[in-house]
Amino acid sequence: MPSAVFDSSEYDRRLERTKERMAERGLDALFVSDPANMNYLTGYDGWSFYVHQGVVVTQDRDEPVWVGRDMDANGCRATTSLSEESIRPYSDDHVQSPHDLHPMDFVATVLDDLGVSDGDIGLEMDAYYFTAKSYTRLQQNLPEASFEDTTLLVNWVRIKKSDAELEYMREAARISENAMQAGLDAIEEGVPEYEAAEAIYSQLINGTADYGGDYPSIVPLMPSGDHTGTPHLTWTDEEFRDGDPVIIELSGCRHRYHSPLARTTYVGEPPQEMQDRAEIVVEGIEAALDAAEPGVTAESVEKAWRDTIAKYDLEKEDRIGYSMGLGYPPDWGEHTASLRPGDETVLEENMTFHMIPGLWFDDFGVELSETFVVTSDGAETLADFPRRLFKA
Amino acid sequence: MPSAVFDSSEYDRRLERTKERMAERGLDALFVSDPANMNYLTGYDGWSFYVHQGVVVTQDRDEPVWVGRDMDANGCRATTSLSEESIRPYSDDHVQSPHDLHPMDFVATVLDDLGVSDGDIGLEMDAYYFTAKSYTRLQQNLPEASFEDTTLLVNWVRIKKSDAELEYMREAARISENAMQAGLDAIEEGVPEYEAAEAIYSQLINGTADYGGDYPSIVPLMPSGDHTGTPHLTWTDEEFRDGDPVIIELSGCRHRYHSPLARTTYVGEPPQEMQDRAEIVVEGIEAALDAAEPGVTAESVEKAWRDTIAKYDLEKEDRIGYSMGLGYPPDWGEHTASLRPGDETVLEENMTFHMIPGLWFDDFGVELSETFVVTSDGAETLADFPRRLFKA
Repeated sequence: MPSAVFDSSEYDRRLERTKERMAERGLDALFVSDPANMNYLTGYDGWSFYVHQGVVVTQDRDEPVWVGRDMDANGCRATTSLSEESIRPYSDDHVQSPHDLHPMDFVATVLDDLGVSDGDIGLEMDAYYFTAKSYTRLQQNLPEASFEDTTLLVNWVRIKKSDAELEYMREAARISENAMQAGLDAIEEGVPEYEAAEAIYSQLINGTADYGGDYPSIVPLMPSGDHTGTPHLTWTDEEFRDGDPVIIELSGCRHRYHSPLARTTYVGEPPQEMQDRAEIVVEGIEAALDAAEPGVTAESVEKAWRDTIAKYDLEKEDRIGYSMGLGYPPDWGEHTASLRPGDETVLEENMTFHMIPGLWFDDFGVELSETFVVTSDGAETLADFPRRLFKA
Repeated sequence: MPSAVFDSSEYDRRLERTKERMAERGLDALFVSDPANMNYLTGYDGWSFYVHQGVVVTQDRDEPVWVGRDMDANGCRATTSLSEESIRPYSDDHVQSPHDLHPMDFVATVLDDLGVSDGDIGLEMDAYYFTAKSYTRLQQNLPEASFEDTTLLVNWVRIKKSDAELEYMREAARISENAMQAGLDAIEEGVPEYEAAEAIYSQLINGTADYGGDYPSIVPLMPSGDHTGTPHLTWTDEEFRDGDPVIIELSGCRHRYHSPLARTTYVGEPPQEMQDRAEIVVEGIEAALDAAEPGVTAESVEKAWRDTIAKYDLEKEDRIGYSMGLGYPPDWGEHTASLRPGDETVLEENMTFHMIPGLWFDDFGVELSETFVVTSDGAETLADFPRRLFKA
């Protein structure tokens, strides 16, 4: 019995839009191996992306075909509405085989069976988990096929959210607020980093009084002290010390939908310079949020941030945000539009972004983020959490 | 200041063994993109594998070269002892670029700079995160190079653990014991699944009285009720019900080293049939553990399990275990030796395996696992946890 994460009409719309883009590209079939895209098109949800798997969309079939490991076929039956003939499991001897048997050999037989072995087939060439070997094995098995790189085809369909998707992202935002508060409460002098990580995780999974939380695609990140300039280090046994700046970046998750949130805190009394810089970050993020509305470009949103900090003779070169929502480890980003110079994506209603600008100096960094949805006339942040420098 | 997870002599030995295998294959260079292999060779640790990165080993250089995103270079300085000239960051405009700029374009310039652009270069063709596009871009950029598939070259070096690595795995086992007990304590009729997940996570990260825990490469899995036959579904808001079998699979983690553990529990009074089957699983796993010692093959260990359950007219076709240790999401397995028919890997002292056999029937599944190290004359399990069916 499939769980009803979305109505079947929602999946129908997603598939229809995907097929439209396939038609524009002249594709007979699309092989989707990004777990988020697999979920988007079918509802399939499971921690099975450590083995090769995917879904095949063909122009002439009403539903996609799931291909995965034999022991995951029941998971497909439990989380999707696919009919039996659209569930194609491969045997366990394909898994990390010592006999040169590769899951893509099986995928090739499925593509052949679907009548597209000599067709134009789209592959997510740069998606997580679609390895170089997956590609060369498909080439070897299907010498008549013509492969095209369709890495972000489904991701671009995902960029505009439905109301049902936004509802899950709002639920995720409630979880993010609770987890951020727990993290800020836990951090103090002498507390080991892992205890703060535990406090955050506890809220991420306990969720709210009304519902629980899913595992986030990225673990809570808490660079502190000298490490505020190393954004992707994870927690250790080290204790927080007086005078440590700490950046917390986390996301609640509901049915794989995220709503990330970042804040900065300081162990002890923050120096005036840091408070001043934090105010600049707040001013910059608010200017950028004000700039976001349907019809403007992604780069113009970033420019509002850059113009603000330039008033204080500051500049930062990295992008300040990206489209996101549905995701699996290692990332909740969609890899489509970014808020950065050169990105001319025009914002539309119901697009969602994580805006995470920051400033780094010799002794500290300040980072603060908001997840927002583009509304009919502006931008609405999903979380409601004070925008300021905290102190522990 | 690099954290001292291992002595530098440990990294020297790892590099030396890797170079020996490279020499056997006639390789001038090896590009390693599996995050576990990157960590193994350099100590590099960070949640940055959602962008392209890697380390390059060449025969004529004393240390590997790290290549990654600009904002992760400080993370490399913090977790490795690499000299500045061995840290090669690429600029942020390579990240999910709208301008057809790919991180592998930069990797190609590094390989060229290292003098191997016309050499024999090993690539981990089937490793997580080494995408099809990574491969085609390297091919385009380095037309004179000869690429070879070296997917598990470093993984096979990793299969025998040092005493220092085993120490971390033993620490991880202490965490696994605490987390398993917390999970068994939390599960009861009417409790939502996410509350049990929270109880487990809390222990995984709080660790023990002496040290904290790292995030595991796989989230705790708790298939229950009808879903014990769907091993990779994650927790939901559903409540445990009287009569539910529940399988818990989890792993503590220390410095990225794991020690997985699985047990089965039952909400209410388990039927006699299930208790009987659980005893068969225990008998089978103990027979397989007894069979494990230096000099025997991986398949012979599986045969001891299979022969045991055959006495009860039962059979199971999947592999019952695999080599593991160091890992990042999505997997803690090493993808080398498996305990299954046809795997003729000869066990040696200090190899480590997760043995996870199970039996599934119409109404329930029973699974029970142990992580063990091959000792001079047998096998030693790392966790000390009762081997039986539990009830909640």
